[in-house]
Amino acid sequence: MSKEITARSEDYAQWYNDLVLKGGLADYSPVRGCMVIKPYGFALWEGMRDVLDRMFKDTGHQNAYFPLFIPKSFLSREADHVEGFAKECAVVTHYRLKNDPDGGGVVVDPEAKLEEELIIRPTSETIIWNTYKDWIRSYRDLPLLINQWANVVRWEMRTRLFLRTAEFLWQEGHTAHATAEEAVEEARRMLEVYADFAENYMALPVIKGVKSPAERFAGAVDTYCIEALMQDGKALQAGTSHFLGQNFAKAFDVQFSNKENQLEYVWATSWGVSTRLVGALVMAHSDDDGLVLPPRIAPLQVVIVPIYKNEEQKALINEKAAAIVQELKRAGITVKYDDSDNARPGWKFAEYEMKGVPVRIAIGARDIENNVAEVARRDTREKMSLSLDGLAARIKDLLEEIQQHIYNKAKAYRDAHITPADTFEEFEKLLDEKGGFIAAHWDGTAETEAQIKERTKATIRCIPLNNPQEAGACILTGKPSTQRVLFARAY
Amino acid sequence: MSKEITARSEDYAQWYNDLVLKGGLADYSPVRGCMVIKPYGFALWEGMRDVLDRMFKDTGHQNAYFPLFIPKSFLSREADHVEGFAKECAVVTHYRLKNDPDGGGVVVDPEAKLEEELIIRPTSETIIWNTYKDWIRSYRDLPLLINQWANVVRWEMRTRLFLRTAEFLWQEGHTAHATAEEAVEEARRMLEVYADFAENYMALPVIKGVKSPAERFAGAVDTYCIEALMQDGKALQAGTSHFLGQNFAKAFDVQFSNKENQLEYVWATSWGVSTRLVGALVMAHSDDDGLVLPPRIAPLQVVIVPIYKNEEQKALINEKAAAIVQELKRAGITVKYDDSDNARPGWKFAEYEMKGVPVRIAIGARDIENNVAEVARRDTREKMSLSLDGLAARIKDLLEEIQQHIYNKAKAYRDAHITPADTFEEFEKLLDEKGGFIAAHWDGTAETEAQIKERTKATIRCIPLNNPQEAGACILTGKPSTQRVLFARAY
Repeated sequence: MSKEITARSEDYAQWYNDLVLKGGLADYSPVRGCMVIKPYGFALWEGMRDVLDRMFKDTGHQNAYFPLFIPKSFLSREADHVEGFAKECAVVTHYRLKNDPDGGGVVVDPEAKLEEELIIRPTSETIIWNTYKDWIRSYRDLPLLINQWANVVRWEMRTRLFLRTAEFLWQEGHTAHATAEEAVEEARRMLEVYADFAENYMALPVIKGVKSPAERFAGAVDTYCIEALMQDGKALQAGTSHFLGQNFAKAFDVQFSNKENQLEYVWATSWGVSTRLVGALVMAHSDDDGLVLPPRIAPLQVVIVPIYKNEEQKALINEKAAAIVQELKRAGITVKYDDSDNARPGWKFAEYEMKGVPVRIAIGARDIENNVAEVARRDTREKMSLSLDGLAARIKDLLEEIQQHIYNKAKAYRDAHITPADTFEEFEKLLDEKGGFIAAHWDGTAETEAQIKERTKATIRCIPLNNPQEAGACILTGKPSTQRVLFARAY
Repeated sequence: MSKEITARSEDYAQWYNDLVLKGGLADYSPVRGCMVIKPYGFALWEGMRDVLDRMFKDTGHQNAYFPLFIPKSFLSREADHVEGFAKECAVVTHYRLKNDPDGGGVVVDPEAKLEEELIIRPTSETIIWNTYKDWIRSYRDLPLLINQWANVVRWEMRTRLFLRTAEFLWQEGHTAHATAEEAVEEARRMLEVYADFAENYMALPVIKGVKSPAERFAGAVDTYCIEALMQDGKALQAGTSHFLGQNFAKAFDVQFSNKENQLEYVWATSWGVSTRLVGALVMAHSDDDGLVLPPRIAPLQVVIVPIYKNEEQKALINEKAAAIVQELKRAGITVKYDDSDNARPGWKFAEYEMKGVPVRIAIGARDIENNVAEVARRDTREKMSLSLDGLAARIKDLLEEIQQHIYNKAKAYRDAHITPADTFEEFEKLLDEKGGFIAAHWDGTAETEAQIKERTKATIRCIPLNNPQEAGACILTGKPSTQRVLFARAY
């Protein structure tokens, strides 16, 4: 089984695709750039969604649902927004098919042309702010804290499973506030929620920062982000939270009467994470034998595989396994007992390693005699013989230990891959030979940023929050700079 | 507040719209036929979704996600299917906008025309069976039991909030089986799941039956359904489960090797319920003062309103209320304490009645002295004074009693509105004067069914499962019939 996976050292991109396809996470679809999320991949996303949804609700947000379609004219209302999103969207122009008069199946009915074309939402600021206009009258209606779980479409030219697909699933928070301060506070609160989720559930260390103007969301005043590092040294933006100022309120004329009964434009935020996180999870932790999933979001935490030579042994093991399954379930652990006869234990071992199940328990007749089980960790591949007495408590601890270990490993790698560069030569060499984040001085201009990107394919991933200030010279232009920013090649 | 709702007796359709809009369930959108589901309405749908999702998983199903887009040619593969769905769909023809050279915002870029148009899924049989072709090889891959929660689009000409919208949210199960018997069993199992959910959570009595051929899903061999009755005597199809035979397997060439290593076409089912259920819930139980929600799916089960004359009293009540809230939460009851100063108690009472919160608890300073609270049921409007000792247990029982009462009331109404008719005159008179289901003999032909529909607007809702057989004469043609079927005017 594991032989079918391309090694990371051989072809990292192919390794990733192998994991996604053979790990049962997703499949290609006949629709260009769209994927099918398979049950195991969807279970992973569902688990992530449920944790995030709880976090959003705990911070006062409610879910709602807005239309899939956006009237074309809405996109034009906010000048930067239309530049960012009009170029890559799916356009609905007709609402009916008819039988082909020439007998070639069905054709678009030219009579059923829409007066105004509809865009499949690439993001929902416009349709939502058009709605908020009706919902917000007074300061009493604020803050309005709404989130939506939805599918969105961006007609990307180059797509990759989970990382960049034409259609993807995401959540988008859209909040409205009476003051700029409150809106900024909200945008940063949600950044903290994302960082908490990434680090404590996905075991993914992230750097919290703010984007350079060139990398901002189209229509935002400030874009906050969390940036993670993959095993090939490329960065991945794992979530963004935008302070939108009054841009959308002005574009859609959303005003409220303040306590002094004066009309003011509303302040806005939006923030989102997507199924891209599944890709990040795969790339951050997995190895050449398959997925490595952090226990807190693994769809299946423990698998039990019986090892028997005859039906008598099997019956004995089945009985013991049933008791262990009950014990683990009572401890809140998700567990599967795989006693299928279709495959040998070795094949099962490889299959569950491929799927990244954090803990495997193997039980044979001899083990039962000795009141032990063989327990194998997916992350370190360590095996140990554990007593069946108090097994659930040990497994529970072990799952936490695995969670921590996966995080620590990713963090050690990430920390070792934040490197300062003081000259452009050093910068290029680091990018090509080491990868990771490069902390370098930048003169703060979009021109320099664009030149560096053109010459090296590296972009400014973020200016870290609480970034230390130090005098320096821009690596490209030598002009003065007050702080280093983080560059990287990125997904 | 309640005065703003149109009375049922005055204008039932307007009453329904008033409830949906003023109860905070949904709003119109600027996109024709699409609605915005507001937070309270979405919480209701989320609650329903979570219960159903659990039921699907308990019956062995897994969630997955398939593309929003369906290549146009896929629709034509199954002959009946294309007839049913091609006529009312949103068609994506282009993938880019560009700045209008004449300065009028953005226009569709004619250069970005798709080679093959994409249809926004009206239902996903075609894209899913095209995928199953790759997933199914052998009998070991069966049964394949998959469900998807998704948005779908059907370009309806006449739309109504929740009941019939161009875009709606739903779940669609798509299963593949080795034998016809297993597939029929699955279709009927899911019908039972739907009936269980409707009756035991939504408090909505339903009739389980099978559709006449004319009312079948486009592409199905048999369509099972649950039919509910609204308070205006019109029926509403609340869920369907289809036995698809080998139609889609043949259209997409999905074969498996059976145990004898011979190739056979796979047998299929599909089944779905949608946000339409929210409309059914509203129309089945609510009254002229607002929504009446069954406790098991009410987003908020209990609201506590303090009644105070001064800050001292308020402080006293706040303290007591905090303890009650804790006690109720520990008992698994969702509860909100509304101590906002924005509105008087009377206004709050009307507001929560409008929103259908099953139980309201009012507490004044005198109540605390007497160690009691005033508890009001939303369904019967009864008020009672209950001791604060053991209040949570009493409320828990009360919520169950309310759930049962709402169901019993709907069932009594429904049962009183299944009326036999033996002549066409009687049939027409019943439809016009009483409404509800009419049990009548039918000669079994599509022609007669169509004529009855044209003359009366009534359709055959279903042939109930385990329908008693009796000899009779068709109410329209007088031809012999072996059983009565249920007719009704329907949503």
